[in-house]
Amino acid sequence: MNTAERRRAVAQLLVVRASGHASDRQRRYPRWELSNAALQELLEAGVGGVILLGGSATDLQQRCRNLRDWAGHSDLLLCADVEEGVGQRFEGASWLVPPMALGRLKTKDPDTAVALAESYGRVTGAQAKRCGLNWVLGPVCDVNSNPANPVINVRAWGQNAEVVADLAEAFQRGLHNSGVLGCAKHFPGHGDTAQDSHLELPVIHHSRERLDRLELIPFRRLIAAEVASVMTAHLLVPSLDDQRPATLSKAVLTDLLRHDLGFQGLVVTDALVMEAISRRVGPGEAAVQAFEAGSDLILMPVDAHAAIDAICAALDNGRIPESRLHESMQRRQQALKRCSDLETATPGNAIETEADHALAMELVERSLEAQGPVLTPTAQLTGLNLIRVDGVLPCPVLRADSAAVSAPEGLGFRTRICHDKGLSPWADRGDPKEPLALETLGDGGVLLQLFLRGNPFRAGQERSEPWAEAIEQLLRHGRLAGLIVYGCPYRWDALRTLLPESTPAGYSPGQMPEAQEQLLSKIIGTTPAGTGGRDFTD
Amino acid sequence: MNTAERRRAVAQLLVVRASGHASDRQRRYPRWELSNAALQELLEAGVGGVILLGGSATDLQQRCRNLRDWAGHSDLLLCADVEEGVGQRFEGASWLVPPMALGRLKTKDPDTAVALAESYGRVTGAQAKRCGLNWVLGPVCDVNSNPANPVINVRAWGQNAEVVADLAEAFQRGLHNSGVLGCAKHFPGHGDTAQDSHLELPVIHHSRERLDRLELIPFRRLIAAEVASVMTAHLLVPSLDDQRPATLSKAVLTDLLRHDLGFQGLVVTDALVMEAISRRVGPGEAAVQAFEAGSDLILMPVDAHAAIDAICAALDNGRIPESRLHESMQRRQQALKRCSDLETATPGNAIETEADHALAMELVERSLEAQGPVLTPTAQLTGLNLIRVDGVLPCPVLRADSAAVSAPEGLGFRTRICHDKGLSPWADRGDPKEPLALETLGDGGVLLQLFLRGNPFRAGQERSEPWAEAIEQLLRHGRLAGLIVYGCPYRWDALRTLLPESTPAGYSPGQMPEAQEQLLSKIIGTTPAGTGGRDFTD
Repeated sequence: MNTAERRRAVAQLLVVRASGHASDRQRRYPRWELSNAALQELLEAGVGGVILLGGSATDLQQRCRNLRDWAGHSDLLLCADVEEGVGQRFEGASWLVPPMALGRLKTKDPDTAVALAESYGRVTGAQAKRCGLNWVLGPVCDVNSNPANPVINVRAWGQNAEVVADLAEAFQRGLHNSGVLGCAKHFPGHGDTAQDSHLELPVIHHSRERLDRLELIPFRRLIAAEVASVMTAHLLVPSLDDQRPATLSKAVLTDLLRHDLGFQGLVVTDALVMEAISRRVGPGEAAVQAFEAGSDLILMPVDAHAAIDAICAALDNGRIPESRLHESMQRRQQALKRCSDLETATPGNAIETEADHALAMELVERSLEAQGPVLTPTAQLTGLNLIRVDGVLPCPVLRADSAAVSAPEGLGFRTRICHDKGLSPWADRGDPKEPLALETLGDGGVLLQLFLRGNPFRAGQERSEPWAEAIEQLLRHGRLAGLIVYGCPYRWDALRTLLPESTPAGYSPGQMPEAQEQLLSKIIGTTPAGTGGRDFTD
Repeated sequence: MNTAERRRAVAQLLVVRASGHASDRQRRYPRWELSNAALQELLEAGVGGVILLGGSATDLQQRCRNLRDWAGHSDLLLCADVEEGVGQRFEGASWLVPPMALGRLKTKDPDTAVALAESYGRVTGAQAKRCGLNWVLGPVCDVNSNPANPVINVRAWGQNAEVVADLAEAFQRGLHNSGVLGCAKHFPGHGDTAQDSHLELPVIHHSRERLDRLELIPFRRLIAAEVASVMTAHLLVPSLDDQRPATLSKAVLTDLLRHDLGFQGLVVTDALVMEAISRRVGPGEAAVQAFEAGSDLILMPVDAHAAIDAICAALDNGRIPESRLHESMQRRQQALKRCSDLETATPGNAIETEADHALAMELVERSLEAQGPVLTPTAQLTGLNLIRVDGVLPCPVLRADSAAVSAPEGLGFRTRICHDKGLSPWADRGDPKEPLALETLGDGGVLLQLFLRGNPFRAGQERSEPWAEAIEQLLRHGRLAGLIVYGCPYRWDALRTLLPESTPAGYSPGQMPEAQEQLLSKIIGTTPAGTGGRDFTD
């Protein structure tokens, strides 16, 4: 290999970040998403993978075609974090209830849960392929043994190692049958952390024996099931390596994952832009250390050129043997051979088939919970429909005609949406028993609809909101018309215990409009058809 | 013509409504937007036109290909209400400042305004064509002589007939050069109404002499410029026809438009689903009356089948002579011949070129206004960034990284977005001089950013909000940090007079992120680069 060939070979191991939108100006995270000019240049230089986020499923389909055109070949790895179906990230595809919903179902009906997990993988894989992706960054193999986990939570298939292993394996089987690659993550297990690795480096103080007994079980199972790739975690696990986070640790990636667990597929880092890594190590050195430790693919390097330069230099000066490069290239080629032909994706065909949608609806139906009587509108209890969401710029869970808005409106409730950049519903009077500023909320009962995922990227915003105290306050004043929680089962389990039997209440792990519709039709008896009123244009 | 041929011919004259999204479940107005199955059936039955709304520019591009595939031929009229650029309706294309911005510029710099209006038409036409549309439903030819007009307002090119005629003609020239059809609307002139024809039937009490002197001037000019189509208004104009609204009036469409004004092109109704028509006349009869009055094309019939049946029956029983059908078919064919070849639209090419974006930026730059000093953050005046928008489900004017949010945040302001479904900033104490509930807004100065278009579909929500009184209240308390108005020039002109010279203030007719960025960079000196913070995923 001459220098130019080697640069190209190294570039092949990078997976860079792009928006799913056509135009640079549509990017939602321009700090992290490459411009089209930069993307085109990197693909021409041989960069071998792109991770995509944002845009509609049709946008994505067009985008994948463009990326392959720019690369000049079809041997690109195109992936996305579509753990909850392609519709989680790309509007128009199926957005499925979070994996934890099946973990909860498995305690009641294990066979159904496993069958649904396989369908979940099959539909996700098939839709990814229709959009032009060949690599799904799932299943999550973390066992969410810590309910306070701020980064995994409902993304996990459960809280128990065998449950997670069974469901993640079934998901992988479904993915495999659809002809796309999967990714077991986050190795060696991110379930028992209370810090968010997007922001800091969590430490796992478990012994190797405990890891074998819990965290590693789903990974062993997925490796046996021939998952195509394993993603590393940005975690410090002193019992394995007390110096380096797993992503940069030879002890974790080579000694444990390759040798002890015998994994022959692709090892990919989690995003190197995450601060657990980027705060500790420079952009070039992080890529070198990850590669040296045993990663084949470098995901979202802080600076792609710096990563290529630094890995080339490490190969030049003998810090890393050239054989490592050949091994990684070969593993990448083997993985690509396992993807089925992409050319079957026909533009214009529906990304979500009717059968796909039926699965999405079944997953909602089997995972929702309702208690108490049906909510009947009374003069006393019809008042405010107070909806709590993370944010509204944008608000993926709500549209003007979403059931969480339109169904209570049909009963006479006034909609008020609380969000991080809205006026606050909280009183500033320092009385923890009266947290809501009830005097500003108008008269009548309050239907509380809380969208709480209890997981990442929210900087703890959720935890600072005293919803338990608010529920007690509303009950004390005789003003709680009902409670609905969408998302985190831990929050639901905690809040439901506060309710008397006479309070209509419900829970869905899913937050999507279909979940709202099904749950509200149980809680308020019928869902008034959302006619969208008289409006017919923006 | 046998019965089947005649049904097909009549179907050709319909323009039905579809969403720009790929999937039925993505429709934003499912009450008005046909399902894919219904669309496919109608196109196979010969329906000849589709009006599209919603989705990204890439979605639209794919959608137009699908519609032509379903029709089995390329002779479809595909149109959209993209009066303010394709980006007004389809994200990823250029969203331009409203036409009224150029009317305001024309008083200062007429040549530039006319040149910009032509570019405005050219860019809108070129982008429409790249997306697959061949018919732009503009220019608006209404003279907004009534500043209280709830439906035209900033959509008009001005308040004076000659100004509107000059700019609308220039726009049409630009459209024509890009190879797409235009549409002069809303005949005989919707500028002097104080009612919203989406909800009721406005009455225009002007004499024919006054219409000749004002309302008809831009239409005469556009007809001379060979505009391809004219859209009718849902207005009652007793001096022309004291029984029927213009859309259904032979006196207006045939006697005035065809005979007196000599218009040879396509006459198209405004949407028949609008309540000014649909409340008065049944779905079949409305289509018959419009056709009988002189319309060639029926836009958004309440029920496409009922419209076809009723028109066929009217032809069968001699109520309408068959020659009318042939005339309309012929005009439609002639219009289609004027469209340039659509096959030049290459998927994957940018819908918005760099030159297009430069025009969008120039339009913003030339139309913004700033007064008072630069806003300097002080301990006293840094507080709340109170943003008023129409709604947040969705919020097309704001993204998390939009300048209206991020620039004041960079100075230390807290963002609070007020919208129709949010908690209210208004006090309920009945004191008109203290309308804002200041006690709930926290300490410090308040930067007010008001997105007020003063136009349709908002059911008068804007007018009930006492922003003038709120500004006086903030001034009295020494808490007004600055005022920015995006949208309606009338509101800006009224509110600016309340401000002392020491208050930083500004106005942009455009509400798009580019307008925010340019205006804030003038008002706060520099725009802190919107890094989007540490977030890198949803």
